[in-house]
Amino acid sequence: MGSGMTMNPRSQDRSALEQEQFLKILSREDALARFEAALFPRTIPSEARKLADALGAALAEDVTAPIDVPPFDRSNVDGFAVRSADVVAAGEGAPVRLALNGETIHCGTAPTLQVAAGSATAIATGGPLPRGADAVVMVEHTQPAGSDAIEVRRATSPGQFVSYAGSDIARGEALLRVGTIIGSREIGMLAACGIAEVNVARKPRVAVISTGDELVQPGRPLTPAAIYDTNGAIVAAAIDENGGEAIFLGAIPDDEAKLEAAMRNALADADMLVLSGGTSKGTGDLSHRIIGRLGQPGIIAHGVALKPGKPLCLAVCDGKPVVILPGFPTSAMFTFHDTIVPVLRRMAGLPPRSDAKVNATVPVRIASELGRTEFVMVSLVEGRGRDGLIAYPSGKGSGAITSFAQADGFLRIDALADQMPAGTEAEVTLFTPHVRVPDLVIVGSHCTGLDLVTAQLAHAGLTVRSIAVGSLGGLAAARRGECDLAPIHLFDDRSEAYNTPYLVEGLELVPGWRRMQGIVFRKGDKRFEGLGAKDAVAAALADRACIMVNRNQGAGTRILIDRLLGGARPEGYWNQPRSHNAVAAAVAQHRADWGMTIAPVAHAVGLGFIPLAEEHYDFALVTARKDRPAVRAFLDALASNEARAALERAGFRPA
Amino acid sequence: MGSGMTMNPRSQDRSALEQEQFLKILSREDALARFEAALFPRTIPSEARKLADALGAALAEDVTAPIDVPPFDRSNVDGFAVRSADVVAAGEGAPVRLALNGETIHCGTAPTLQVAAGSATAIATGGPLPRGADAVVMVEHTQPAGSDAIEVRRATSPGQFVSYAGSDIARGEALLRVGTIIGSREIGMLAACGIAEVNVARKPRVAVISTGDELVQPGRPLTPAAIYDTNGAIVAAAIDENGGEAIFLGAIPDDEAKLEAAMRNALADADMLVLSGGTSKGTGDLSHRIIGRLGQPGIIAHGVALKPGKPLCLAVCDGKPVVILPGFPTSAMFTFHDTIVPVLRRMAGLPPRSDAKVNATVPVRIASELGRTEFVMVSLVEGRGRDGLIAYPSGKGSGAITSFAQADGFLRIDALADQMPAGTEAEVTLFTPHVRVPDLVIVGSHCTGLDLVTAQLAHAGLTVRSIAVGSLGGLAAARRGECDLAPIHLFDDRSEAYNTPYLVEGLELVPGWRRMQGIVFRKGDKRFEGLGAKDAVAAALADRACIMVNRNQGAGTRILIDRLLGGARPEGYWNQPRSHNAVAAAVAQHRADWGMTIAPVAHAVGLGFIPLAEEHYDFALVTARKDRPAVRAFLDALASNEARAALERAGFRPA
Repeated sequence: MGSGMTMNPRSQDRSALEQEQFLKILSREDALARFEAALFPRTIPSEARKLADALGAALAEDVTAPIDVPPFDRSNVDGFAVRSADVVAAGEGAPVRLALNGETIHCGTAPTLQVAAGSATAIATGGPLPRGADAVVMVEHTQPAGSDAIEVRRATSPGQFVSYAGSDIARGEALLRVGTIIGSREIGMLAACGIAEVNVARKPRVAVISTGDELVQPGRPLTPAAIYDTNGAIVAAAIDENGGEAIFLGAIPDDEAKLEAAMRNALADADMLVLSGGTSKGTGDLSHRIIGRLGQPGIIAHGVALKPGKPLCLAVCDGKPVVILPGFPTSAMFTFHDTIVPVLRRMAGLPPRSDAKVNATVPVRIASELGRTEFVMVSLVEGRGRDGLIAYPSGKGSGAITSFAQADGFLRIDALADQMPAGTEAEVTLFTPHVRVPDLVIVGSHCTGLDLVTAQLAHAGLTVRSIAVGSLGGLAAARRGECDLAPIHLFDDRSEAYNTPYLVEGLELVPGWRRMQGIVFRKGDKRFEGLGAKDAVAAALADRACIMVNRNQGAGTRILIDRLLGGARPEGYWNQPRSHNAVAAAVAQHRADWGMTIAPVAHAVGLGFIPLAEEHYDFALVTARKDRPAVRAFLDALASNEARAALERAGFRPA
Repeated sequence: MGSGMTMNPRSQDRSALEQEQFLKILSREDALARFEAALFPRTIPSEARKLADALGAALAEDVTAPIDVPPFDRSNVDGFAVRSADVVAAGEGAPVRLALNGETIHCGTAPTLQVAAGSATAIATGGPLPRGADAVVMVEHTQPAGSDAIEVRRATSPGQFVSYAGSDIARGEALLRVGTIIGSREIGMLAACGIAEVNVARKPRVAVISTGDELVQPGRPLTPAAIYDTNGAIVAAAIDENGGEAIFLGAIPDDEAKLEAAMRNALADADMLVLSGGTSKGTGDLSHRIIGRLGQPGIIAHGVALKPGKPLCLAVCDGKPVVILPGFPTSAMFTFHDTIVPVLRRMAGLPPRSDAKVNATVPVRIASELGRTEFVMVSLVEGRGRDGLIAYPSGKGSGAITSFAQADGFLRIDALADQMPAGTEAEVTLFTPHVRVPDLVIVGSHCTGLDLVTAQLAHAGLTVRSIAVGSLGGLAAARRGECDLAPIHLFDDRSEAYNTPYLVEGLELVPGWRRMQGIVFRKGDKRFEGLGAKDAVAAALADRACIMVNRNQGAGTRILIDRLLGGARPEGYWNQPRSHNAVAAAVAQHRADWGMTIAPVAHAVGLGFIPLAEEHYDFALVTARKDRPAVRAFLDALASNEARAALERAGFRPA
């Protein structure tokens, strides 16, 4: 994304490209060490902040308590200030009469009379102890004795119900240390000492620029071949989450002069510059060339042995960090967290982030590239019995935003390993402080109808995790006891039945709904309008210019297609996406002219649809998990009128 | 605090007070259940928010993906779009020559030419796959072949290096559910779909009023008998931390008309009203009387069997929650977290807070009141060997802000128990997601000089926890191996030596510094000016109007005082605070005329000082912990010129 590559083998660009590939790739640790060495130590700028505005800021200096808290010896109860020597032997059977002094000590009123022997002064909770008194008797332990005296009926020791001056916070003690993040508790301690303003580290201003001609900002219409700028928004938000103040400057096209001007302006105004996109080593990659002109020492590392994140570029220009993140969203975000957050937090005067870690078992083998530290995004689910947690690797890769955004954390595969075998117990670094094991785990094929059913659970406060690995992957997970339900739509060619032939012991079928499969084409395409399915396929096969889009091996829809084709291999047969949505997109966007998908998907993008046969979308339920509350809630939701109506509205037919 | 009690036994107020004490006290669970039943279910108001401003907000509705992400079949590498059937058998020894089509697909440019059999189109990472192609070959696996062709030298399978439309996010799938808190990851998913604005739950506006004539806002000068308003600031900050928008209206004096006007104005404008102070059942307590006039159903619970927090008042006035928090800071904050935060989060559309819990051993017996659920604030330190965590109860009580602010969490003692025995393994609910076990634990007597030494550790990133339990408590903790160092200043009357006589096996003495003890008096007091210590005491004893302030039994200073007094028991002898600061405050504030404290404390408050004898402030070091890095760092800091100079500047004499 944003590489803007000119892949013309006739030009000199190609050799430049190949030359660049020999640039030295640094190890992750080397790159970070060099980056930090070029940036630190440095002065953390600070600013005065009113207490009410200081929440979340980091203290820029130690704070010493300027006063004692409480500032005076304070009564902790409503009662009477006394001399303990007068009432040390008082009791129910031996009441001691004390004359009342002619004042009542409220909160905020200073006492004026001394408590002499044989006397007492009424005092409210929080009132300052008068001269002469050394203890307080609770009002409940006294009786009025005439109009100007009380009887004390409880023995009283020195200091009883008194909080002495400085017993909470002592004048001169270190109240808070530099670097402390100010939360409500810190605000309480500062307020108690009367401190209304504190010096806090000024948030580093971080300019964010997206690069790439293909980027459209969210909220605007998407043009053909364009994509929405994901990295700009997510990087800006992650900067705010980690103590910085993001200034998002939008997407700049791949124009050297414009980009250089934008980068210079950003750096003049900000403490740090982060670019995303434009990190391919293609010849159109401008940003890293520009960096060389922006200040010393310039590029520290361009290419880091890190996956995801290899094309990361770290630079320092006249003391300010400049970073080019990889263009792929998960690469960008992982790299940002791994390499930029530590620097940003340090510049913000914050302590290092403390990441929570848990151990989890990897259910499948994970391949890894030798020579690069690889970080694998994983989702956590509860294992069977006492097996602990299971860490599912995201199958979507670093080009997908959901690989990062829906993961619970990541595990690390060493640069010297070429795989992590299935069954490995790995340490998972969490993205959030707690493991949030979902209440219901669904692993298999995904359907938008499923969201309509699980909505009821989500709104009742249950967490549902749906991991899309296809029907066969779901069945395998169900057999291993790693999920509650596996949604499947598997057609058995021999028995001509859906799903049931695939069940094994320990699994049972829960009927879901039917999805009408059919042939899709662009409305107005005369080759298909008005035809039945068989005639439509015959028409397609008759036209050599007509291109199909197929489905992946193993998909139930693929079996139907192959039957219709009867051995023919028309143009587009090898275009084999893995989802109904991808088939519809291929036809809608003219990459293909026909294919097979389900009715709701066809209708959503406005394609013509020739119905053919219903697909059965059912659930393989792990019998041992049948009585879990979330499973019951799912089965109830599935059977509810509400869900059935919603499924029908969306074009599905509940079983 | 803020009770504004009129404790006049001659008035009718007293019987009203006693009557009120018979009001029904509800159990914590009962009170909460009634409060929530009066408030929920309710509609959560929502508002549209731009993505950039939505960080931290809670989604007000489910969000469904409006588009496929990626929107088209996308190349994941720089290379050439091909038909896999052409190059399925390509290899180093069997290169396949493909003619180049006359366009290069950049990011953001839609392809115009079809990839026909035997041809290829140059494509950049992120570019859309052209019609006819079903895979991409990396540029590294090709060679130029003349000016308008390439050779492919690697077998290529269908779909290679292609991300299909919708493979990241499928149009129509449930992207995010209502109640999700929007972090950077959610912003990434929304941006990827082109969503620029979301409906989020509107933050509840929570008005905060402090009540009490004695309250001074931080930043203003403290008048006699007044204290700083701690609760206003801490409650407002805690509201902001838990999804609300605090509107702090300042402290209102104990005036019924003024307070009622303030409460009515606050409720007209806000979704919730929180008062702090004024919760004593003293007769001056106005706020709960006013609540009865503000709306239906009014007070739900006044008095909850909860410690700290008994005087909590929960009310609902015409649908809006009104809460009167106890006046003591730790009571107020604990009650706020226990009872108000769940309601506030629910009103804010947030999920319940998930508190982390750990198990820890209680080193000392904790007494508890029968019939009230008691929550005890604790600090966590690492135990000996494999003993796990030790939970130290805060000894300061609910009147101290530091009981709450410096605790790591709290443990619960059931209403039916009257104590928790020493050695109990208890569950501790943490205030922060992680246990932060400190690097260095110091338990014993505190001295401001100690802060000067530990500053070096704190600035080097080490965390230091200092728990002030007095010299003897520190020695006990050291013997149990619960701390690294115990600061002590214990005088042995028999051997006339400091500290060394108190050491047992496993402990060794690290010399600290000397603190000059002496007699303090107010400057200008003619009774003491110019005298030596013995003469000063003689002068004090000769004047019956002269009042002393003593120290607690067990304090080294107390032994000195008793020697000077030689058996006399003058006025004020039973006033026995536990710290040097409290002695100085008593004299400075005229509660006493003389006492004994240390020179730096006397000078800090501007008292006259007659030096008498040096106190030895040393450290009992747990030998087994001697080699821990933080202990070494402490010993280095103690010996450093920097610390010695700082101690001398502060009036201490390094040993």
